[in-house]
This record gives sequence, structure tokens and C-alpha cells, in this order.
Amino acid sequence: MPLPPPAATGMPLAEVDTPALLLDLDAFERNVATMAESARGLRLRPHAKSHKCPEIALRQIAAGAVGVCCQKVSEAAAMVDGGIGDVLVSNEIVGRAKLARLAELAKRARVSVCVDDATNAGDLDDAARAAGVRLDVLVEVDVGANRCGVEPGEPALRLARAVAGSRHLRFAGIHAYHGAAQHLRSVAERSAAIALAAEKARRTRDLLEDEGLECESVTGAGTGTFLFESGSGVWTELQPGSYIFMDADYGRNAWEGFPRFEQSLYIWTTAMSAPVPGRVVVDAGLKAHSFDSGNPLVAGWPGVEYVRGSDEHGVLKVASGARAPARGEKLRLIPGHCDPTVNLYDWLVCYRGESVEALWPVAARGAFY
Amino acid sequence: MPLPPPAATGMPLAEVDTPALLLDLDAFERNVATMAESARGLRLRPHAKSHKCPEIALRQIAAGAVGVCCQKVSEAAAMVDGGIGDVLVSNEIVGRAKLARLAELAKRARVSVCVDDATNAGDLDDAARAAGVRLDVLVEVDVGANRCGVEPGEPALRLARAVAGSRHLRFAGIHAYHGAAQHLRSVAERSAAIALAAEKARRTRDLLEDEGLECESVTGAGTGTFLFESGSGVWTELQPGSYIFMDADYGRNAWEGFPRFEQSLYIWTTAMSAPVPGRVVVDAGLKAHSFDSGNPLVAGWPGVEYVRGSDEHGVLKVASGARAPARGEKLRLIPGHCDPTVNLYDWLVCYRGESVEALWPVAARGAFY
Repeated sequence: MPLPPPAATGMPLAEVDTPALLLDLDAFERNVATMAESARGLRLRPHAKSHKCPEIALRQIAAGAVGVCCQKVSEAAAMVDGGIGDVLVSNEIVGRAKLARLAELAKRARVSVCVDDATNAGDLDDAARAAGVRLDVLVEVDVGANRCGVEPGEPALRLARAVAGSRHLRFAGIHAYHGAAQHLRSVAERSAAIALAAEKARRTRDLLEDEGLECESVTGAGTGTFLFESGSGVWTELQPGSYIFMDADYGRNAWEGFPRFEQSLYIWTTAMSAPVPGRVVVDAGLKAHSFDSGNPLVAGWPGVEYVRGSDEHGVLKVASGARAPARGEKLRLIPGHCDPTVNLYDWLVCYRGESVEALWPVAARGAFY
Repeated sequence: MPLPPPAATGMPLAEVDTPALLLDLDAFERNVATMAESARGLRLRPHAKSHKCPEIALRQIAAGAVGVCCQKVSEAAAMVDGGIGDVLVSNEIVGRAKLARLAELAKRARVSVCVDDATNAGDLDDAARAAGVRLDVLVEVDVGANRCGVEPGEPALRLARAVAGSRHLRFAGIHAYHGAAQHLRSVAERSAAIALAAEKARRTRDLLEDEGLECESVTGAGTGTFLFESGSGVWTELQPGSYIFMDADYGRNAWEGFPRFEQSLYIWTTAMSAPVPGRVVVDAGLKAHSFDSGNPLVAGWPGVEYVRGSDEHGVLKVASGARAPARGEKLRLIPGHCDPTVNLYDWLVCYRGESVEALWPVAARGAFY
């Protein structure tokens, strides 16, 4: 059973139990509005793998988004259960049970999905037939991420033809996402990576359209690069996810020329031990944030650094002369990587100023099937 | 709501949905028995932060353990709810709400807890008085981990006196756990680290007992070092956790002279894309295992290496000449670090041979309050 929330609405932030996942609503709302403005002219389909929270998806759609992306069928189901009517599963779905669930979902919402293999397209067609639905399918093209996706050009054309020739599938365009480019540190590196990706996406789109396969959607882009995709004239739809929260790793990117997104996501933690001068231990460790992108940062405490995490502890180093958090004092940490950190929590504790305004369930927490 | 389990009892392993957390029951049962034999003469109190699963705690106790350790009050509550009658919270508990919950728990089970600060001991006394209970309290001594804990010797004596003089607390001994020693690679390094820790623990115990403060329990030790604690003549109780599962990081330790613990915990994953020769992508990424101790290993696939994880994908590199997993094929990954990986799942899918025998809820998943 999920744990009870660590807070109640109206409660002062100081009383919220720790560790908790905090969302600064003012910063979050500004981030949602800023992206909605920045995407002007293109369809915005934010990635729900970042938040896994229908309450957030509803607010993104209210601000103009056309729907959301998901990575897993169970994540998509949580979004549809939460009232979202248009979900792109921006990923390959493999295995009979998953395909059956995906096709069933298409009875309740507009569902599209990616493929990078003709056999998989055949399996999708079978699942759609069995469920009595028609699925929108995008061909994933590897534009530089070196993960999934067919090669640009002819391989994409062959697969698009297979999709278009499948009775229960509709060819809907190409998926061209360059994940590896999002965290290149300089704007110039990110711009150069997306210029290469754009060449591959454009060439593929042109080839397909020359062959009579209309690419209704060319979809991709993330928080780190969306300006370049939107300026390329190739993409028709943007999929950024992290912009609503931001994190320590995105904070290490350079951002000149980009609109400003603010840190809105924090881990609320208590200083639980201060055994010797210069060392304070907090109650948020490896199970309270994801360490794949390094240690969290300590917000608003100059000279205090999170230097080491173990399962349930974080060790802070306090520089000489800096004020150390006192035992029992609570502080905010900025997670290294927002997406897998959110996936550790059942609740987002949403606050404004110094008090809790709402508790939003992370409904798709753990939904990786 | 927790997701439905990705399997049913009796199902062939091949049909279990992915990603899933698999437990090889034969290996697990041998690990439980091996530790029970190895701890002969000392009390064994396995750490439940590794498994967060009352079904496992019950089996450890049936094999001779005296109870379990937990790190958090909510984790301890999940164990008591699951029928465990003796829980040591091997950690400091700070904050009024948490202390009240801890004291309430002591009405339903034998509950002990650690302190490293006199003010905190006073808060514990208040909480115990308010709940009408008496709490067993251990003084945590820093024997080398440089995390929580008072210094050995006089500081420990002062705190033990404060505890012993508190009306609603009972001084129960010292907590001396050297976490940082567990993953030192050579047996000689681990032995040397515990020899230093033993000197500090012995000196502290002797000082306290000379002053009339009986140390009923000297508790600590982990999977990587327990032989040294048990051989020292100082510790009376052992707290290993990971031995039931093991992981890739423990696999990098040298083990000469130790009993053998087998890998029993795996992530079950599907090869979802094989876009180019030499690269296979699986459906288990940053949200399916913890990467704090590096990438997972691929079990039983020579020449196949997990080289890169992103939120929902893992990229495998297939050496030339090695057999690559085919699209749709399922494989087992050995997680880098077992404890925070288990915390990502709602269910342990327990199998024997090639079929699912049981589904155990990870009842304390996310219980970090």
C-alpha cells in the first residue's frame, strides 16, 4: 500500500515530514507558462516520464499542450486513468502482454506508439486487430542518440512502408529524439548536435514524403535543446519533460539564448545528526534521490555541500565559517536528476510560500511495465 | 495505488512481465541458512533495509534471527504490521512526529533505537512518557564510518549516563557499525578496518561497564565484515542485510575465508530493440535499478555488457562473436546495489527453477519517513 502523504493541505512547510518531494507551485506554474509561450507555432507534448502525475499533465494541457508522451504502457494507462485523452508512447513496446494492454488503451484515448522493427510492427498490427482498434504508429529514427531507432533514409522508408501497409496501423510520422544532446554543457555543442539530427530527420521526412508517405508528425526534442528543433523547420512537435522541475544536472548546462526555467522540485530533509564540527547528516540518502547524475545540491545554504550518500543518510560538509544546519532543522535539496528521483515518491507536496497547498499523487510511480 | 504484480504463481518465468524484481528462492534459502550457521554464538539481527519485506524477515527469524534492524520508523512499522515482534531502529530518529510514531510502535513490539545526542535522548524520553512506554536505547559510537555517532570513550559514557538516567528509557548497549568498511575490496583491508573499530568499541564498552553501565548489546557488522566482528569478542549481535541477495558491487569484493553467498536477486528485462549489430536495448534503465554503485551486470550472457542506462532504457554492448539477445528475449541483470534497487519495486517475484512460486510484497517500499 502507498504510504500516507507526509503532509496535509494548509500545513506549514516546517511541519512536513521528511524526506518529502516538494514542488514550489509558483516556480512550477511559471515554468509551465514559459514553455507554452516558447513552443508557439509547434505542438507541445510534454513528457510525462518526468512527473508521472496526471495533475501536472492536466495543467500542461490547460496551458496549451496537445497531450503527453509516456515511455511505458502502464505509465500511459495511469495518464488515461487520470483523464488525459492523447498519449504518445515514445518508445518501442515489445511482448504480447504489453501490446495487448496498449491496444486496449486505444479504446479509451488516442494512443500512438513508436516502432523500429518490421516484426514488431506486425505484432502491433496483430494486437490492434485483436482489440478492434487502429493505432497511430511513428517510425523511430536514430538521429544521434545511438539507442533505439532505425537508421535515417532508406531503412526508415522500408519500415514506414510496412507500417502504412498494415491494416490496423496508421503511419503517423517519425520520432526523432536526440536524448544524448540534452546534457551537452555548452549551447554551441547542443546546437551542433541538433543541426546534425535535423539533417537526418529532414532527409528522412523528405524521402518518405517523396514516396507518398505523409509525415503528419515529426516529434522529439527535450528541455536542453527544444529551441534548436523548433527553429529547424523540421520538427512539428516538441516533447520536453524536465523544464517543469529542473535539476542539478540541468543546472550545469549553459543556457544563453534560452528562456529561463526555475528550480521547482526539492527534497525536503531533516538534519538528524551533527556529531562533529563541519559534518551534518541528513535523512535523505540513496533511496530519497537518484544519484545517476551525481549528488544533490543544498539549496540556500552557502558553504554547505552534500558530499556522500548512503542508503538512508546524506553527509553534508560545512565549510569553516558557514552556518551549519542545526539538528532538527529542515532543508531543501536539489536532486541531481529529476525524473528517477520523482519515481521514488508516492506524493508531490505542493507548496506556495511557506505552506502546503496541495498533495498530488505520483500515480505512475513504479509504472515501468 | 501499487501496480498489480507482474506475474502470477505457477507462471513460467518466461511469461513474467518486465522489468520485474526476481528472487531465486533456492539461492535465497541457502543464503539464509549459511548466515544462520555462520553467526553461531552471536545474536543475528538482519537488516530489513535491504529487503523491506516481512515475508523475508519471517524466514530469517524462523532460521534463528532474534528480530530485524530498520533505518526508519515507517519501515519499522511495516515490519511490525507484518508480524515481526522485535525491531531495532539502528539510526537516530529526530522530530516530534517521528518520535511519537516510534513510541506508539513500542506498544505493539519490542522496539529499540539509537541516539548520538543528549537533547535527542531527552526528546525520546518525552515521547516514551507521552506514549506510556519504556524504550530500549543504544548509544551509537562512531567506530570509523564518519557518519553519525558520538566519539568512542568519554563522549559515549556521558551520553550513556544521560540515557540511563532517563525515566522512560533503558540503556541497552552500544551501536558500532562500520558501514564504510563493507566494500573495501580486499579481505585484509576489511579485517584491518574492523580491528580498529573493535578497539574503539571494546574501549568504550569497558569504560561504560567499569562505570556500572552494562552493555547488554554491542551491535553492528555487515555482509562484508561480519566474520571479523564475530571473531573480535566485542560484538554480541550482527546486522548483515545484503547477504540474502548480493549484488554487483559485493561481487567486486574478495571473499577468501568467508562463507559463500550466492546472487539471488535479479532484474528481469526484455530486449526491446536491436537496431544495429553489437547493440541491444533493454527495457530496464535508471528507474529499474539504482546506479549509485555502477551499472548492472548481465547474468549468463558472456560477451554482453550493460554499458549505459537512461530513464527507461539500458544499452547492451555485444562483443563480436558473442550471441546477442534477440528482440523479445528476456534476460536477468545483477543490480549494482541491492538495497536501493529493491526499494524501486512493489513486488518480489520469487521463482524456483523456471516457474514462479510466490509473490512477496515489498511492504516498506518508499517507507523513508
